Amino acid sequence: MSKSVNVAIIGSGVVGSAFISQLKNLKTSVAFNVVYLARSSKEALFSKDYQPVDLATYKTATAQPVLSLDALTTYLTAASRPTILIDNTSNSTLADYYPKFVSAGISIATPNKKAFSSDLKTWDAIFKASAAPGGGLVYHEATVGAGLPILGPLRDLVTTGDKVDKIEGIFSGTLSYIFNEFSTTEESKVKFSDVVTVAKNLGYTEPDPRDDLNGLDVARKVTILARLSGFEVESPTSFPVESLIPKALESVESADDFLAQLPNYDADIQKVKDEALAEGKVLRFVGSVDFKANKVSVGIGKYAFDHPFAALKGSDNVVSIKTERYPNPLIIQGAGAGAEVTAHGVLADAIKIAERIAN
Amino acid sequence: MSKSVNVAIIGSGVVGSAFISQLKNLKTSVAFNVVYLARSSKEALFSKDYQPVDLATYKTATAQPVLSLDALTTYLTAASRPTILIDNTSNSTLADYYPKFVSAGISIATPNKKAFSSDLKTWDAIFKASAAPGGGLVYHEATVGAGLPILGPLRDLVTTGDKVDKIEGIFSGTLSYIFNEFSTTEESKVKFSDVVTVAKNLGYTEPDPRDDLNGLDVARKVTILARLSGFEVESPTSFPVESLIPKALESVESADDFLAQLPNYDADIQKVKDEALAEGKVLRFVGSVDFKANKVSVGIGKYAFDHPFAALKGSDNVVSIKTERYPNPLIIQGAGAGAEVTAHGVLADAIKIAERIAN
Ligand SMILES: NC(=O)c1ccc[n+]([C@@H]2O[C@H](COP(=O)([O-])OP(=O)(O)OC[C@H]3O[C@@H](n4cnc5c(N)ncnc54)[C@H](OP(=O)(O)O)[C@@H]3O)[C@@H](O)[C@H]2O)c1
Ligand SMILES: NC(=O)c1ccc[n+]([C@@H]2O[C@H](COP(=O)([O-])OP(=O)(O)OC[C@H]3O[C@@H](n4cnc5c(N)ncnc54)[C@H](OP(=O)(O)O)[C@@H]3O)[C@@H](O)[C@H]2O)c1
Repeated sequence: MSKSVNVAIIGSGVVGSAFISQLKNLKTSVAFNVVYLARSSKEALFSKDYQPVDLATYKTATAQPVLSLDALTTYLTAASRPTILIDNTSNSTLADYYPKFVSAGISIATPNKKAFSSDLKTWDAIFKASAAPGGGLVYHEATVGAGLPILGPLRDLVTTGDKVDKIEGIFSGTLSYIFNEFSTTEESKVKFSDVVTVAKNLGYTEPDPRDDLNGLDVARKVTILARLSGFEVESPTSFPVESLIPKALESVESADDFLAQLPNYDADIQKVKDEALAEGKVLRFVGSVDFKANKVSVGIGKYAFDHPFAALKGSDNVVSIKTERYPNPLIIQGAGAGAEVTAHGVLADAIKIAERIAN
Repeated sequence: MSKSVNVAIIGSGVVGSAFISQLKNLKTSVAFNVVYLARSSKEALFSKDYQPVDLATYKTATAQPVLSLDALTTYLTAASRPTILIDNTSNSTLADYYPKFVSAGISIATPNKKAFSSDLKTWDAIFKASAAPGGGLVYHEATVGAGLPILGPLRDLVTTGDKVDKIEGIFSGTLSYIFNEFSTTEESKVKFSDVVTVAKNLGYTEPDPRDDLNGLDVARKVTILARLSGFEVESPTSFPVESLIPKALESVESADDFLAQLPNYDADIQKVKDEALAEGKVLRFVGSVDFKANKVSVGIGKYAFDHPFAALKGSDNVVSIKTERYPNPLIIQGAGAGAEVTAHGVLADAIKIAERIAN
């Protein structure tokens, strides 16, 4: 009676397991029939006759080796229902395969930034395949700001004919936390290296904090925002990205050695902070797409005390979208990382796809 | 070759004419075929054989009398394509008819609050008709915060299983402007009555400013937010709404007389403002849905200087959504009125409907 779709879930890590649990409790008019669940890069649950995987027991159920991507495509497209593939990994081989999935009519919902923030060719291949007759749909709201509604609303503005003037935002929860603690509206002697160490101890950073401090994750998100709004960015390394890693510490072997030597460079960034404070400003690590200046960039910016970025708390993300219709920018703010919010961003996308393709 | 939908546009006032102009320039994969355009409550453009109305000449083209709502339904449902009806009026007869349109398979996109903020029975009738087999879809993003992405993201949270704790916001552009001017973080002798008069002269208020100051428009928006998040509000008058109109001035005949007498009451609200300032707070006119307190209300609230509501500028709207997943609230802010932003909110809804129903 009711409409249904098949679902293939790849990955059951932090986001993947939250996704599965939200899906298990979902009440929608469209039935989600999970026909493939890759529990890891090695093992998957599925059956020849597309029997639904039991989401209550998927952790312990007897699994089979994962299918190759070609075999997976054949398996999914041979089914009678249309399929949504949920990529809850950060795998780039999988991401590179998106154009093939989409050409085969498989739709994709994912928080995996890889496919959308590598070279422009991949982006073009995905969306060209999607626009072609029979192509699958591709939704990736959770690749920027996790579950925050950013990409959907931006796409709506652009599609209905608005002109983006400038997009600016804080897109790393880790760097949001670090700068919110380090640079406040009051004079403080808080040391940059201390804040980084605390962030690492709280589990807010990658195992090696340099993977946050190099700015590349922010550059990937800005690449996605730029492309969506019509700025053809070649790759996340094709525009200026300010790294917070002192040159001399880039080649230091271990994360521990890096943290041990970081205090030697505190004076440099303290000076930048003090200068900003003297102007009535705080420091924030921002990404921006500036159409007027024809420039995409990532780095430290200075913001007046009454600017929304200055009032940011915790590890929240924020984006400010200035357009012809919103000269006073549209601002969206809130948690930009975390299992539950990311999973719901992916699930909301999956529902939107299901509402379009279910039969 | 490409998919298409029929579109019936009702109303070409402030929002309606902006909508038509955005639609005219729209480039999407789905073709929008305008088969009916009610230029006013009297005249409409349409043809027996569903020839597309020319949007370049609709203002001057020879029109016919509008169809009755029954005749319109028959006309639209007899076509071979599915139809989206765009209600760009504030008409309540039309709004009351939504359940019939939707039952007949006609989808609706609208900025008209009426249908969604009257008695709960109408709300239930609309969404029951929509959920029934063959029912039309109903999108109404622009009924709260104009083009701001509020209702869609809220629905996404609820559908994926999040629990709303509290929704709070500034939903009237007029009252946003009045309080942003009247109550700032610095001591000021700005008079409430003066701000209201300036707002009227700038064209920010209704012809009679009491239609803004009575809080009913905000109550309607809060009713919609409450119902969407699962709080069954009977009607916009079934919960406390603080009116900013002094009791004695409710029955004053003309808007001019009202404005002439308003200064007599400045001292009362000035006292509230001074008390707030002494606590380090500003006044804002907010609507809120508080699940913990089991309470929906509209009225003056006090907010600390570092609260996002205190930093609001111009006539912007803002909403703060606190949920289980967003204990640090999700905040969305920007212009909450205006022809272009409202029209793009309606058009983005129409596109989403078209992507689901076009054939
Ligand atoms: N966590 C967040 O707050 C957040 C926020 C926004 C976006 N994201 C994005 O969400 C994605 C998932 O993040 P996460 O935090 O859940 O990572 P995670 O905990 O490391 O989980 C990734 C999972 O994917 C599996 N996997 C990798 N390659 C696979 C393959 N080829 N086939 C099947 N399974 C494979 C991994 O299994 P193995 O152990 O076998 O490799 C692992 O279980 C990433 O793209 C991330 O950038 C995360
Ligand atoms: N303007 C904003 O910023 C804004 C923001 C958010 C939401 N909205 C909502 O958007 C809607 C339209 O607002 P607006 O500012 O565009 O109002 P408006 O300028 O007064 O336009 C309303 C139009 O609808 C026509 N109309 C009324 N009843 C009709 C009927 N039964 N059949 C055909 N046409 C009919 C009117 O024509 P007649 O003159 O012949 O009656 C008029 O042209 C309202 O519901 C409003 O609350 C507006």
